[in-house]
Amino acid sequence: MFPGANTDRDAAEYVVVGAPLDVSTTFQPGTRFGPDRIRTFAEPFDDFDRRSGQSFTDLDVHDHGDVHAWDDAEEYLEYVSGLLSDVRREGAVPLVLGGEHTVSLAGVTAVEPDVFVTLDAHLDLRTEYAGNELSHATVTHHALETADRAVILGARAGSEAEWQRAAEPDVTVVAPEAVGDWEPAFDDEAVYLSVDIDGADPGFAPGTGTMEPFGLTPREMRDVVRRVAPYATGFDVVEVNDRDDGQAPSLAAKLLRTFVYEHADRR
Amino acid sequence: MFPGANTDRDAAEYVVVGAPLDVSTTFQPGTRFGPDRIRTFAEPFDDFDRRSGQSFTDLDVHDHGDVHAWDDAEEYLEYVSGLLSDVRREGAVPLVLGGEHTVSLAGVTAVEPDVFVTLDAHLDLRTEYAGNELSHATVTHHALETADRAVILGARAGSEAEWQRAAEPDVTVVAPEAVGDWEPAFDDEAVYLSVDIDGADPGFAPGTGTMEPFGLTPREMRDVVRRVAPYATGFDVVEVNDRDDGQAPSLAAKLLRTFVYEHADRR
Amino acid sequence: MFPGANTDRDAAEYVVVGAPLDVSTTFQPGTRFGPDRIRTFAEPFDDFDRRSGQSFTDLDVHDHGDVHAWDDAEEYLEYVSGLLSDVRREGAVPLVLGGEHTVSLAGVTAVEPDVFVTLDAHLDLRTEYAGNELSHATVTHHALETADRAVILGARAGSEAEWQRAAEPDVTVVAPEAVGDWEPAFDDEAVYLSVDIDGADPGFAPGTGTMEPFGLTPREMRDVVRRVAPYATGFDVVEVNDRDDGQAPSLAAKLLRTFVYEHADRR
Amino acid sequence: MFPGANTDRDAAEYVVVGAPLDVSTTFQPGTRFGPDRIRTFAEPFDDFDRRSGQSFTDLDVHDHGDVHAWDDAEEYLEYVSGLLSDVRREGAVPLVLGGEHTVSLAGVTAVEPDVFVTLDAHLDLRTEYAGNELSHATVTHHALETADRAVILGARAGSEAEWQRAAEPDVTVVAPEAVGDWEPAFDDEAVYLSVDIDGADPGFAPGTGTMEPFGLTPREMRDVVRRVAPYATGFDVVEVNDRDDGQAPSLAAKLLRTFVYEHADRR
Amino acid sequence: MFPGANTDRDAAEYVVVGAPLDVSTTFQPGTRFGPDRIRTFAEPFDDFDRRSGQSFTDLDVHDHGDVHAWDDAEEYLEYVSGLLSDVRREGAVPLVLGGEHTVSLAGVTAVEPDVFVTLDAHLDLRTEYAGNELSHATVTHHALETADRAVILGARAGSEAEWQRAAEPDVTVVAPEAVGDWEPAFDDEAVYLSVDIDGADPGFAPGTGTMEPFGLTPREMRDVVRRVAPYATGFDVVEVNDRDDGQAPSLAAKLLRTFVYEHADRR
Amino acid sequence: MFPGANTDRDAAEYVVVGAPLDVSTTFQPGTRFGPDRIRTFAEPFDDFDRRSGQSFTDLDVHDHGDVHAWDDAEEYLEYVSGLLSDVRREGAVPLVLGGEHTVSLAGVTAVEPDVFVTLDAHLDLRTEYAGNELSHATVTHHALETADRAVILGARAGSEAEWQRAAEPDVTVVAPEAVGDWEPAFDDEAVYLSVDIDGADPGFAPGTGTMEPFGLTPREMRDVVRRVAPYATGFDVVEVNDRDDGQAPSLAAKLLRTFVYEHADRR
Ligand SMILES: [Mn+2]
Ligand SMILES: [Mn+2]
Ligand SMILES: [Mn+2]
Ligand SMILES: [Mn+2]
Ligand SMILES: [Mn+2]
Ligand SMILES: [Mn+2]
Ligand SMILES: [Mn+2]
Ligand SMILES: [Mn+2]
Ligand SMILES: [Mn+2]
Ligand SMILES: [Mn+2]
Ligand SMILES: [Mn+2]
Ligand SMILES: [Mn+2]
Repeated sequence: MFPGANTDRDAAEYVVVGAPLDVSTTFQPGTRFGPDRIRTFAEPFDDFDRRSGQSFTDLDVHDHGDVHAWDDAEEYLEYVSGLLSDVRREGAVPLVLGGEHTVSLAGVTAVEPDVFVTLDAHLDLRTEYAGNELSHATVTHHALETADRAVILGARAGSEAEWQRAAEPDVTVVAPEAVGDWEPAFDDEAVYLSVDIDGADPGFAPGTGTMEPFGLTPREMRDVVRRVAPYATGFDVVEVNDRDDGQAPSLAAKLLRTFVYEHADRR
Repeated sequence: MFPGANTDRDAAEYVVVGAPLDVSTTFQPGTRFGPDRIRTFAEPFDDFDRRSGQSFTDLDVHDHGDVHAWDDAEEYLEYVSGLLSDVRREGAVPLVLGGEHTVSLAGVTAVEPDVFVTLDAHLDLRTEYAGNELSHATVTHHALETADRAVILGARAGSEAEWQRAAEPDVTVVAPEAVGDWEPAFDDEAVYLSVDIDGADPGFAPGTGTMEPFGLTPREMRDVVRRVAPYATGFDVVEVNDRDDGQAPSLAAKLLRTFVYEHADRR
Repeated sequence: MFPGANTDRDAAEYVVVGAPLDVSTTFQPGTRFGPDRIRTFAEPFDDFDRRSGQSFTDLDVHDHGDVHAWDDAEEYLEYVSGLLSDVRREGAVPLVLGGEHTVSLAGVTAVEPDVFVTLDAHLDLRTEYAGNELSHATVTHHALETADRAVILGARAGSEAEWQRAAEPDVTVVAPEAVGDWEPAFDDEAVYLSVDIDGADPGFAPGTGTMEPFGLTPREMRDVVRRVAPYATGFDVVEVNDRDDGQAPSLAAKLLRTFVYEHADRR
Repeated sequence: MFPGANTDRDAAEYVVVGAPLDVSTTFQPGTRFGPDRIRTFAEPFDDFDRRSGQSFTDLDVHDHGDVHAWDDAEEYLEYVSGLLSDVRREGAVPLVLGGEHTVSLAGVTAVEPDVFVTLDAHLDLRTEYAGNELSHATVTHHALETADRAVILGARAGSEAEWQRAAEPDVTVVAPEAVGDWEPAFDDEAVYLSVDIDGADPGFAPGTGTMEPFGLTPREMRDVVRRVAPYATGFDVVEVNDRDDGQAPSLAAKLLRTFVYEHADRR
Repeated sequence: MFPGANTDRDAAEYVVVGAPLDVSTTFQPGTRFGPDRIRTFAEPFDDFDRRSGQSFTDLDVHDHGDVHAWDDAEEYLEYVSGLLSDVRREGAVPLVLGGEHTVSLAGVTAVEPDVFVTLDAHLDLRTEYAGNELSHATVTHHALETADRAVILGARAGSEAEWQRAAEPDVTVVAPEAVGDWEPAFDDEAVYLSVDIDGADPGFAPGTGTMEPFGLTPREMRDVVRRVAPYATGFDVVEVNDRDDGQAPSLAAKLLRTFVYEHADRR
Repeated sequence: MFPGANTDRDAAEYVVVGAPLDVSTTFQPGTRFGPDRIRTFAEPFDDFDRRSGQSFTDLDVHDHGDVHAWDDAEEYLEYVSGLLSDVRREGAVPLVLGGEHTVSLAGVTAVEPDVFVTLDAHLDLRTEYAGNELSHATVTHHALETADRAVILGARAGSEAEWQRAAEPDVTVVAPEAVGDWEPAFDDEAVYLSVDIDGADPGFAPGTGTMEPFGLTPREMRDVVRRVAPYATGFDVVEVNDRDDGQAPSLAAKLLRTFVYEHADRR
C-alpha cells in the first residue's frame, strides 16, 4: 500500500493504481519494479504538508494495488483503462504508478483530457519504435489521439521527425532551461499530468530506463506539478526502475504526494 | 569480442553470436545485457586448457557480435535462425549467447538436432505463458517440434501440465540430485546443447531472471557439458542478466569455453 | 502478498505474518526489509510441487501482511504473539517472515511447542547481548523458557558460555557436517521450526546480518525442513535482509514453500 | 583514522569521534557504518585548502576512533557525552561522525551551546517517535533543553505539532529556498553546528536513512558551514549510511574539512 | 562500438579510441571499465541533435575500439600517441575515452595544441605523485610540456605547490562558481579539450576515482564543451569507472556527443 | 583493527599487517580495499572457538594496521618485507591481509620458508605478465626463489608454460577435486601458507580480481588451513576486493581466524 493511502475504495477521492508494464523499455529494464520501489521510498515521508496545512491521510487516498502486467501491451492498457474509467466514474482521481510510459495511455483514455501535460526528457512523439506502435516512445503521439494538445516540459531528445511533429500547433515544447519560468494557461480545459521521471537530470533520478543528461532539478519538477495539479483530473509518474539507490523512486513518490496535496487544496 | 575469438568468419570452426533478447523475461529482466556480461567476465580466463592441451585461440572461434534484439520475438528468431543456418552451412558450430531462453529456438531451427539437451531449473514445456506462445517458458516445447526428443537436466520446477508432458517418452528429466551420475546415450543422434544458467543453484548464478534454489553445482554443469559436447552441433548459454557481481556470467563464459575445448578435442 | 497466499483469513490453514523487527541486529542491519524481499523473490516460483503433487494456491494460505515494527522489542513481540495465538486458535499454522531472529519468540509463545527446532549458524543461547535481554542472540535461550528442549542444526558459532549451556541435556546441537544425516525423533512432541537463514553458507545467503562461513547447503536445509514439517505447528524464516542480489530471500521463500507443501501433504 | 588527523590527543585542537549509533533509524538503516564510510571517502582529498591557505595536517586534528555503539541509546549518549566533555575541557573542539542524529545530543550536552544550528531536511522537534523519546526525530527538541534557541536550515518536513513548535520564538526555520541568503546573527552566543546529511537533496546524498527531495545543494551546505564555523565550539555530521556509491560520505567528509579549515582560520 | 560511430576508418572525420588505462588511480580504481561503460550508456541517446539539426550517424565517426592497457604507462602512452597521430595525419579528430586522466597525454602529444583546456576538479599540476611521474595527477603539468598554456575549469583541489604553479601566467584557473560565465578567448590557437568527469559534482558523476564535492553541474560542463569545441582538434573524456548506477558514463557519453555535434556544426 | 587483535605489538604472538597493493590486478581492481573489507566482515564472529576451546582475544594478536601502498611494487614489497622480518625477529607470526597476491613475496622473503603452500585457482608460475615481472601472476614463481618447493592447492588455470613448469619436481599441484583428500607431508620443513581467495568457487568469493569457476568450497579451504597451520610460520590471505556483498571478505576473515586458532592450539 502506498503509505497513507488507507481510505476505502468507495470513500476515495484519489485512487493509486500500480501498472508495472515493462515490455518496450528500450535500454535498462526494470519498470516492473517501479510501483513497489515508489511505495517503499514513500515510507519515510511525513504525513503533514506544511504548505497546504493538510495531512495525506486525511485526503482520502485509496491504493488499489498493482494490475499485474502481461506481455500484450494493447490488451493490458485496455484493461487498466477500464479500471481507471471506473475510478473516474466514481468521482475519484486516478494516480498511476508506472511501469513504462506507455501506461499513461490507459490514464488518458479513461480521463479524456483536453490537454496532455508531461514532464519528460523525450518528445515521445514517434508513431512507432522498432516496429512497435505501442512503445513508450509513442505515448505523446497516442495521447494526442484523445487530447487536443500536448505540453512537453523538459524535453531535450527526439528524432528529427518528432521535432517536426512537435513544431505543429497542437504541441508545446518547453526546453529544460525554460521550465522554471513556465506558467500554465488552461482555459476550462481538462488536463492530464504525466511525469516521466527521466525528465529529471540523471543525477537526481538514475533509476530509469533511458537517462538523458542536462535535465530538470527536483524543485523545477515540483513547481510544474504544483502549477498543473489544480487543473488536472488524472496523474501518473512513470519510468522508475530498481537500478539506483532510491533517488528516482523517492522523487517519484514525493511528486505524487505534491500532486495530491496541491490538488486537494484547490479543489 | 569474446576473448580469444579472433578468427575470421570464413576460417571459423565456431561462431559466437550474441542474441540479447529480453522480451518475455518473467521476473527479473536484464538478459539484454547477457552477451556483454559473458564476454566481459571471460576476460580473465587463461587461453590454455590443461585437460585437453589446447589453446582457445587455436580453436578457430569467430565472434559475430550481437544481433540487436527488437520487440517481435518471432521475427527476431527467424532472423537469428537464418544467420545460424549460414553458420552451419559453412561447417561451423554456432555458440549462442543469450538473451532469454527463447533464443535457443533459433539455434534449434538452424541445427535441426535429433535431441535437444538442456540444463535448466525449469521444464520449459509450456505451450504458452501468460498468453505468449513464444515465452522463454515454452522453449523445450517448441524445440520438440524440431527434435525427436529432449533431455532436461537439473529440472526442479514446472506446472502440473508440464510434468505430465514430461512423462511422455520423448522427454527425459534428470533431477538435480541425479545429474552427477547421468551419462548420455546418443546413437548417431545429432544433439543441440542449451545451458539455461538458472540450472545452477542461485548461490552460483544469482544473475538470472528466475532463480530456483536447490540447483546444480558448477562442476555438475561442467561435467554435463563435457559429456554432451562431443555429440553436439550447436550450443547456447542463456538467461544471464546483469543483476549480480559476476557469478552468473563468469560461469556461463566458462561453460562455453568448456564446450569448445571438449568439442574440438573430440572432433 | 506472498505469491499464492490468496485464501481469506477465515478459510486459511496457514497464515503468513511479516514481522520486520530490526532493532538488535548486530552487524549488518536491514531485516526490516526481509518480509518484502522474501515475498518479491517468491514471485517466479511455480505453483505446482511435483514431489507432493500439490499446488500452493490450493493449500489455503493467507497473508496477513506485516506487523509494522517499532523500537520496543518486548511490546512488539507481545503484540505479534497475540496475533499468532489467534491464528493458532483458529486452527491455522503461523508462518512468520522475519525480521531479526527475536521474532521467533512471538511464534514460540503462541504455539507453545515441546521442541524448538532451529536451523542456525549460531547457538543463540545467550542470556543477554550487549546488555539487551531480547537480542536476536538470545532467542534459543528464551525459546527454552517455553519449550522443553531445543535442537540446533548447523550451529558453528557461540560464546564459551553458550557452548556450555548447549551441553546440557535439553539442547541438541547438530554440527553443519552432520546435518545431512540427521533424522528427527519426536514422540508426540509439538514442534516449532525456525529457520535462521544464516544457517546457510554465506555463498548461498549473503543477505543476512551475521554471515558465518562453513555453513549448510540449500539442499541440506530443505531436507531438514521436509523432515520436521510433518511434526510442526509453527514455522518462521528470519534474518533475511536486503543486502544481496536475491540469494537469501529466494532461499527463504523456497524453504517456506517447502514447509507448506510437506506439512500439507502429511496433515 | 580520518585522513590527516594525525595529531596526538594531548596536542589536538580538534578531536574526531566516531559515534556509529544505529538504533532508531526509521527507514533505511546503516548509520553504524557512517564513520567508516566518511573516513574512507575522505581519502582522496588534498591536504591543502586554497581558500584559507592552510593544510589539514597542520591544524592539529586527532582521531579518537569510534565509540562502539550498543542498544541502549541513553547510556550510550551519556558515555559519549562524557568523552566529548573531556575533549572540551582539554580545549579542543569535538567533531562527531554519526551515527544517527541522536548522537548530536552527546555533543550538545558536552558543549552546552547557546544556539543549536542544524542543517536538516526535518525539524526533529518531536517529543517522541513511535514511543521512543530518544529517536533521531527528537534531537532538536532535546537540544533545546540545553540551548536557548535553535536554527534549522533546509527543513522541509515535520509533523503538524513540530511545525507548531517551530513557530515559537526559540526556533528559527530557514526553508531550503532561503538557505542561500541566510546570514548568521550570533551575539556572543556559543554555537553547536550539526549537519544532518539529509539536508542535501537525495541526488547529492542518497546514502541516508530518510531521503527527502527538494533539498539543498552541496555548495549551499558548504556556505552555511563556512558562515557558522567561526562561532562554533562543537560540530557533527550525521545520518550517513553505506547505501550509496559514496555521494553522502564524500559530502560529509568534505563538510567536516570545510568546518575545520574555516574554524581554524578564524580562531 | 560507440553507438552511431559506424563510419569506416578511412572515411572518418572523428575517431573514437578507448584507452582503458588504470594504473595510477589514487582512490577508487575501475577506469579500465570506463570506455565500455561510456559506450553502453550512450545506447539510449537519439541520433538527432535538435540544436544543430544534425544526426550523429551522418557525422562520420569511426570507433577504433580499445587499445588494451598494460602496466607500463609510458610505453602505453607512446603507443596510443602513435595511433592518435595517425588519426590526425588522416585529417580526423581523435576522441579518446579514458581510462585515467594520464591518457590525455597521448592525445596532447598527437595533437600538439597551443592550449590545453580541461574540465577537472583537480589542478593535476604535480610533477610526480607518490613517486610516479606519470600519475593522473600530473597530466596538466605534462600537457604544458607541449602546449603553451592551460585553462583549468572547475578546479577546486590541489596541493600548495600546484596552486603556486597555477598562479604562473601560462595557467588559467576558473573556479567552479565562475565556470558558468567563462568565455573562451583563443586567437588562432590550436586547442585540445580534456574532460575529467570529476569536474562534475559527485551527485552527477559518482563513478569516478576521486570524487570532489562542490563541483559543476552537467549543463555547465556542456556549455564549456560547446564553447571550446569549435576551436578544438582533439578531445577526450576520462576518469569514468564502473562504480555508480550510470550517472558518470551517461554524462561522459553525452559530453562526447555534444563535442562532435558542435565541432561538426562549426567546421 | 582486526576484531580481537587487541594485544600490544611487543606482547604479540601474531601480527596482522594490511598490504593493500593493487597495481597489477589483471581484471577487476579493488584489492586496495581488501584489508578494510576483511576487518569489517570479521566483526560478527564470536571470540570463542569451540573446536580448540580458545578465545581469539587470548591468542595475543596485534594489528599493525595497513602499510599504505604506492605504485612501485618492488619498493613496496621491500618495505613490507622489512616490517615482516621485524615481526619474525620478535618471534611473532605475520598474518598479511592483501592486497594483490604479489604481497605474499614480502611474507616469503621475511619468513624464508622451505615450502610455499598456496590455495589458488591459478598456478602463478609466470616469469612475467604483460611485461611485468612483479605481477600477481608470478608470485609462486618468485616464491620458489626462496622456498625449495611449492604446493598449489585447487589450481585449475595457467598458461602452457606454467603447467610445464608445474610438472617439475619442486612443484606439487593438487587439482580442486583432490583437495579434499590432500594430506600434508612436511619433514621439518618451514612452511608459509598463502590463501588466494580465488581458490574458492566464485559463488563463495565473487569479490576477487579474476574469478575462476569450478573451485573449492569454503570447508575444503578451511580443512587445508587447519592441516597446514601447525607447520606454518607465516600466513596471508589475498586478492579480496570490494566488489561483492561480503562473501569473499567474510571467508577470508574466517580463514585467518581458523589459521590462528589451529596454529595456537598446536604450538
Ligand atoms: Mn516518456
Ligand atoms: Mn522519457
Ligand atoms: Mn529455460
Ligand atoms: Mn530456467
Ligand atoms: Mn539466530
Ligand atoms: Mn544466526
Ligand atoms: Mn535529523
Ligand atoms: Mn533529517
Ligand atoms: Mn584529472
Ligand atoms: Mn580530477
Ligand atoms: Mn594468486
Ligand atoms: Mn588466483
